[in-house]
Amino acid sequence: MVGLDPVYHRLPPAITTHRQMNDEFDAAAAVDAIFDFCTQTMRIVAPMVPAVKINIAFFEKYLWEGLESYYALISEANELGLEIVGDVKRGDIGHTAETYAEAHLQNPELAGLEDTLAPDAITVNGYTGADGIEPFAKMATAQGKGVFVLVRTSNPSAAAIQDVEDAQGQPMYEKMADIVGEIAAGPERIGQTGYSNIGMVVGGTAPQVTAALRTKYDTVWFLVPGYGSQGASAAECVRFCKADGTGALINASRSIIYAYEKPQYKDQFGDNWKKCIEQAVIDAKIDLANAMQTKL
Amino acid sequence: MVGLDPVYHRLPPAITTHRQMNDEFDAAAAVDAIFDFCTQTMRIVAPMVPAVKINIAFFEKYLWEGLESYYALISEANELGLEIVGDVKRGDIGHTAETYAEAHLQNPELAGLEDTLAPDAITVNGYTGADGIEPFAKMATAQGKGVFVLVRTSNPSAAAIQDVEDAQGQPMYEKMADIVGEIAAGPERIGQTGYSNIGMVVGGTAPQVTAALRTKYDTVWFLVPGYGSQGASAAECVRFCKADGTGALINASRSIIYAYEKPQYKDQFGDNWKKCIEQAVIDAKIDLANAMQTKL
Repeated sequence: MVGLDPVYHRLPPAITTHRQMNDEFDAAAAVDAIFDFCTQTMRIVAPMVPAVKINIAFFEKYLWEGLESYYALISEANELGLEIVGDVKRGDIGHTAETYAEAHLQNPELAGLEDTLAPDAITVNGYTGADGIEPFAKMATAQGKGVFVLVRTSNPSAAAIQDVEDAQGQPMYEKMADIVGEIAAGPERIGQTGYSNIGMVVGGTAPQVTAALRTKYDTVWFLVPGYGSQGASAAECVRFCKADGTGALINASRSIIYAYEKPQYKDQFGDNWKKCIEQAVIDAKIDLANAMQTKL
Repeated sequence: MVGLDPVYHRLPPAITTHRQMNDEFDAAAAVDAIFDFCTQTMRIVAPMVPAVKINIAFFEKYLWEGLESYYALISEANELGLEIVGDVKRGDIGHTAETYAEAHLQNPELAGLEDTLAPDAITVNGYTGADGIEPFAKMATAQGKGVFVLVRTSNPSAAAIQDVEDAQGQPMYEKMADIVGEIAAGPERIGQTGYSNIGMVVGGTAPQVTAALRTKYDTVWFLVPGYGSQGASAAECVRFCKADGTGALINASRSIIYAYEKPQYKDQFGDNWKKCIEQAVIDAKIDLANAMQTKL
């Protein structure tokens, strides 16, 4: 899965310069450039990867104009046959959680926008427990969509919360995984392939932990962040896959979309940023396939 | 603090009927009605309360049109002299957290919108630990604004995560409070009144727990949800106040904005929903003041 975390000042000059912006605070031009870049990037990667993850923060930065662009991008991704994860990390309780679920998972006929689509899945923060996850799971199931709940994040300070062990030695992220796992196991949530539409976001765990999660939650897809720029190796990521290669959506964002900044691609393709992205995807796929071979 | 969680189908008929909507899926008319209702409500409550909490979920439901309305409402609240808490519960790590902080705390000159304001404070979900809180705290401090981090939520399933005790008997929400407390204690964050701009969202704790948090985090404002519809009593809420009455922002949402649905107000004021809201605020203030007197 290719993650789209587009930052205006990191876009290739070919995308930004012809817009002749006076400065980078011209929001409409920035949104336009970001949309153009993301659309072109998706056209390159669509034949090679099953899914994109669109990080809504980078669109919210441009307020309502940014949000309109986020939804337009979802429609573009859909036309390209890509599965779309909306990386929104929403979370709340009760009626507010239901409303966020409507906002982000229900196709927006509700809002009188027949041509606008919601993503196929979103990410959710479950700090409030099952009450904060179930409204999203319910809406996702009703809409034929999915949810990935944050279980173990890959940042340095995550351990101070997520790895804290209770008196029996069970860490917090395992408790979260149990809560998500129980919701995911509902028979109405298991599809034809034997997987649930409720998954987990897991990164930054030790090898034995990863293996234990994969075994314990047999019907769960793991969204695995951090491959590439954030430093997780291919071997670490494919541990979340089953022997047939399914069960993990491994995400790379900046290492792909900004490949044109890297000497290894720049030296080969010059200003052709599209070629850089294409080659970075090919290299990532080979790296992951090799790691999968080694694992088997 | 009055919380604005506006749901179209619960608005007073006086707000909705004259718009002659064919059905409730006419998004533009719904957004218009919600904006009208919230603006009128704020005009009623502004002389009586210091702050409003605007729940962004109920605007995100209407996608970009809703988001534009959310920002317009912030400007209206600002003109009325109200402090504004944007109840957005965002949370992420690293560059994404920084981008959310830009989106929700930086006044949007960045986006070329000179007349658009960010709220004075926002709510943040800190499941990722300090890494996920600090970017928001940093931006808030730079902008003279504030952040309230979820520490203990008031929903039934919160205990399964937030009350879990480690081997030494310390519950998770206390660990979260310690992380927030350490960030809040930075000298650059303490203002003229001796309070930090980094606060905590705490509801649903036992009396002795509340008292312990109030004593331990002397410089922290608590955002206390759940007064009114969610069932927390005035006595439970004022436990978060210091003896001088400061230190807690006690929020009531639905019990105020939908007061016109309650027999106690309906019988007295009939279809005058504005009078119902006004009286509900007066009653809430008396209830809280009495509880404060009893406490002292």
